[in-house]
Amino acid sequence: MKDVERNAPKVEARTVKGCQDLLPEDMIPRKKVVRAIEDVFERYGFLPIETPALEHLETLLGAGGEETNKELFRLESPEGDPIALRFDMTVPFARLLAQYPDKLKTPFRRYACGPVWRADKPGPGRFRQFTQFDIDAAGSESAAVDAEIIAIMAEVMQAVGIGDFVVLVNNRKVVDALLYGHNVRCPARHKHVLRVIDKLAKVGIENVRLELGEGRMDESGDPIPGVKLDKETIDGLLSFLAIQADTRHGIVEAMRAALPPGEQTDAAMAEMDELASNLDALGVDEKHAVFAPSLARGLDYYTGPVFETILPNAPEFGSVMGGGRYNQLVARFLEEPIPCTGMSVGLDRLMAALRYLGVVPEEKTIVEALVMTLGNVPVSEAMRVAAELRGNGICAEVYFGAKRSLKAQLSHADRFGIPVAVILGEDELAQGMVSVKDLMAGKQQRADISDHDTYRKAGKATQVTVPNTILIDTVRNLLEHDRGQSE
Amino acid sequence: MKDVERNAPKVEARTVKGCQDLLPEDMIPRKKVVRAIEDVFERYGFLPIETPALEHLETLLGAGGEETNKELFRLESPEGDPIALRFDMTVPFARLLAQYPDKLKTPFRRYACGPVWRADKPGPGRFRQFTQFDIDAAGSESAAVDAEIIAIMAEVMQAVGIGDFVVLVNNRKVVDALLYGHNVRCPARHKHVLRVIDKLAKVGIENVRLELGEGRMDESGDPIPGVKLDKETIDGLLSFLAIQADTRHGIVEAMRAALPPGEQTDAAMAEMDELASNLDALGVDEKHAVFAPSLARGLDYYTGPVFETILPNAPEFGSVMGGGRYNQLVARFLEEPIPCTGMSVGLDRLMAALRYLGVVPEEKTIVEALVMTLGNVPVSEAMRVAAELRGNGICAEVYFGAKRSLKAQLSHADRFGIPVAVILGEDELAQGMVSVKDLMAGKQQRADISDHDTYRKAGKATQVTVPNTILIDTVRNLLEHDRGQSE
Repeated sequence: MKDVERNAPKVEARTVKGCQDLLPEDMIPRKKVVRAIEDVFERYGFLPIETPALEHLETLLGAGGEETNKELFRLESPEGDPIALRFDMTVPFARLLAQYPDKLKTPFRRYACGPVWRADKPGPGRFRQFTQFDIDAAGSESAAVDAEIIAIMAEVMQAVGIGDFVVLVNNRKVVDALLYGHNVRCPARHKHVLRVIDKLAKVGIENVRLELGEGRMDESGDPIPGVKLDKETIDGLLSFLAIQADTRHGIVEAMRAALPPGEQTDAAMAEMDELASNLDALGVDEKHAVFAPSLARGLDYYTGPVFETILPNAPEFGSVMGGGRYNQLVARFLEEPIPCTGMSVGLDRLMAALRYLGVVPEEKTIVEALVMTLGNVPVSEAMRVAAELRGNGICAEVYFGAKRSLKAQLSHADRFGIPVAVILGEDELAQGMVSVKDLMAGKQQRADISDHDTYRKAGKATQVTVPNTILIDTVRNLLEHDRGQSE
Repeated sequence: MKDVERNAPKVEARTVKGCQDLLPEDMIPRKKVVRAIEDVFERYGFLPIETPALEHLETLLGAGGEETNKELFRLESPEGDPIALRFDMTVPFARLLAQYPDKLKTPFRRYACGPVWRADKPGPGRFRQFTQFDIDAAGSESAAVDAEIIAIMAEVMQAVGIGDFVVLVNNRKVVDALLYGHNVRCPARHKHVLRVIDKLAKVGIENVRLELGEGRMDESGDPIPGVKLDKETIDGLLSFLAIQADTRHGIVEAMRAALPPGEQTDAAMAEMDELASNLDALGVDEKHAVFAPSLARGLDYYTGPVFETILPNAPEFGSVMGGGRYNQLVARFLEEPIPCTGMSVGLDRLMAALRYLGVVPEEKTIVEALVMTLGNVPVSEAMRVAAELRGNGICAEVYFGAKRSLKAQLSHADRFGIPVAVILGEDELAQGMVSVKDLMAGKQQRADISDHDTYRKAGKATQVTVPNTILIDTVRNLLEHDRGQSE
C-alpha cells in the first residue's frame, strides 16, 4: 500500500471554493472571542444546544425566502430522501421547538454556534461555509424580550472590544403600517419594496428612488425592474426612511407623526415604545442602539422588531450581527405558533473586522515552554521534564523535529513565539542541572541592537542554568515576567 | 405572508436519520468534557485548527479505504465539481500540511474538534453525523511521539473521570512481519487478513479461525468468503494474537520470540521497545496502556503503531478513542511524505459511555437566578434587577413566559433546576425590598416531608425579604451555600 501511494498520481491539495481553513493564528484569537461571547449569552440565561448540519429539504425549503432556496447545498440521504445543509440555525431551532414540546417547554432560550452553508458567490469575507453564533428566545410576544436581545448585541460588541458600533433597530410592523398607509397592500409588491429598501446602504438613495419607480439599468447595462410606485408614494416612503432624532423616544414620536393614523400604526408604535422603555431600563446607551426607519433585513420570516449592527470605523464589513422577531416560523411545523426572537453573530465577519481594526493581538501558540535536547541526550529525558512541567499546569511541547541542532530548535520556538525554552544538555544533565532561556526578553532586549557581538551577549544574558529542583519556579517566574511586560 | 404560513400544510418536524439533536441537558455536560479534553491537548502543546466540512471528492476518495469510500455523503459544488462531506479529520489535516508548507512547517501539532459524516447503518450510539476530537503530530518518525499520543489518551480518560480504561497498542509493522513470516505477501490478501483480525472482539476466535480458512456462513445463512490460509499458518497467527504478559516490555519479548527472524521483525521490535521505554518515561501505568498483538484497526492509512481504548465496565460501547501512525497519507498530495501520528476521541460515544457509567451529573441549566414579577410590577423592573445581577457576574434570566402566576414561574425554575428565585412584588418594591428564595435548599429540606402543612412551612422558611442594597450579597451567599451542599 505504501509503494502504491508513493507512485500514484498526486491529488492537488486545495480547499473547496468559498470555504476556509483556519490555522492556529486564526483559531487562537477566535476561540477567545467565542468564549467572551458565550459568557455574555450565558449571563443572560441562554442554554447551549446543537443540531445537525443536515436537515430534510422540506424543513428548509421556503422557510427563508427565494434567496436561501436558491442557495441550498442539496444532497440525498442513503435512503434517497432529499436533504440539505442548513442555511441558518433559526429554522432548525423552530423545528426543535415543534419536535420536543415536552422537553422544550416555553419560555425557552438557547444559544448555538456552528457552521451554515449558502451556495452564493464567494468574495472577500464572504464564504459558502460560515459560522453563526446565535441566541433565540421562544415563548413571549413581549418587545421587552427584543430589548434584551438588543442589549446583548451591545454587550457582545463591548465584550470583544470592537470600539465604535451601532445596533440599528426597526420593526416590520412599522414598515407594514407605512406601506399599508401608502396603499401598497399586495404581498408580492410589499416584498419587492422591502428588497429595494434593504439595498439602500449599498446602492444609495437615488438608485432606490429609481427602483421604487420605473426601474433602472445596473452598471453592466442590465435592466433592474422597478416597483412602479407613483412619485407621491415614493416621496412619502423616502422621507419616512430619512427620519432622524437624538433619542429612540424621539424617533418613535417622529414616526408616529409621519404614519397614517389607524390600528396598524398604533400597534407598531406601542411596540416601539415598549422597546425604547426597556432599552432604557437595561441601560443601553442611546448611541449604541438607534432606531432606524430604513432598516429592512433580507429574510422573509421576520414579523416584528429587526436588528442589525454596523461598525462606523469599518463600514465595508457590513453587518456583523443581525436578527429579529419571527412569530410565525414555528407555525411551519405546528398548528399553534410560538413567538420567537433572536439574533446571530456572523463570527467570520466579526473576526475579519476585529483584525482590520487592530483589536486582535497576534498570537500563534498557546505553548509556554519548548523542551529541547542537545547532543546525545535521549528524548525520554525531555519527556520526563515535559511531564513535570505539565503536571504543574505549564503548557509544554517536546521538540520532535527532524533537525536537532540548537538553531533549528530555537527557530521553531521563534516561529510560533513560544516564550520559554528548556534546554537539556549532556553535561548539565549529569550534574542535575537544566538551562532555561527567556525567548521573549531576549527578543525585546535585542530588538534595537545592530552590533553582532553585543547581540550575541544579550542573547546569552537571558539564559540561566539551574538545578532540576527549581526548574518549575524558574519557568513560572519567567512566564509571569513576560506576561507583566506585554500587558 | 403570516396568513399564508398559518394555512399552509404543516411540515413534519423531524431529525434527519442517523443525526442527533443535542438539548441543554446533553450539551451542558458535553461542553465540560470538551473543555477538560482541550486542556489536556493544550498542555501537550497542540494548537487549534479548523477545516471546512466539505472537501473535494478526490481528496477523500481512496484515502481511508473501501469502507469509507462507500460511506461518503457526496454532492456537487455550484460550479458542478464533485465534493463530499469529510469522513474524518485526519485526511483534511494531511491536505493542510501539503497545502500550506510555509505556514505549517514541521514539527507541527494540532487539535481539531468537529463533525464528520459517514453514511453507514445508524444504530444505538452509532450516528451518521458524529463528532471527532482529534490530535495529530506531524514531522517525526520517532515512536516517542506515538508514546506521547498514548500518554495523552490515558490522561484524557483520567481528566473526564471515566474510571477503568485500557489503551490497547499494537503496530502495523508487527502484523506485517508476522504475515510476511507466514508467507502472506500479496497486498489484497494481507488486507483481507487484517479485516478478519479486526473482527476478533466482535465475532470471537472460532469465527476468525473459519474466516482465515475456508470461510463460514453468517447468522442469516449468507456465505462469508475465507482467506483460505492453511491450518499451520492459521494456528501460527492465532497463537501470536493470544500473546499476553504482565508488562509492555514482557509482551515485546514474547512477540520477538514468536516472530520469524529478519529485518522486518527487527524494525518492528525496535519501535515497540522505543514505545515501551517512552511510555515508562512518561509515567504511563502498565494497566492503562497494554500492548495487544490482536489489535488491527480498520482504516487503510496506518503504517506503524495503532491505538484504541476500551472500557472494561462498558465494553458494549466499543472503542471511545482510536488512532495510529500514518507516514504515507500526506504523500497523496506531496512528493515528499510527512510522517504523522495522532488519535481521535469519539465524543458522542464517550458521552454515552460516561452517562451509562453514571459519571455525568445531571445538569439542565447554567442559570443561577430567575427574576420573577408578581401582580402589576412592570417587566422593566425585572430587567433592572437582572442587569444588576449580571453586572456582578451572576447568570440571571428574566421570566418571560405567557403564564405569569407565581406557580408557573416557580415551576419553570424547578423544571430546569435553577437554584435561586428573585421575586419582585408590588408592596416590597414600594419599600425598596426584594424577596429571594433558595429553591435548592427548599427541595432538600422538603424531600422527606409527607405532611402538607410542614411541607408548606419548610418552603416559606427558605425565602427571605431583604433591602435592594444587599440583594447581590444575599444571592451570592445562597449560591455558595448550595454549591457547598452539592459537593
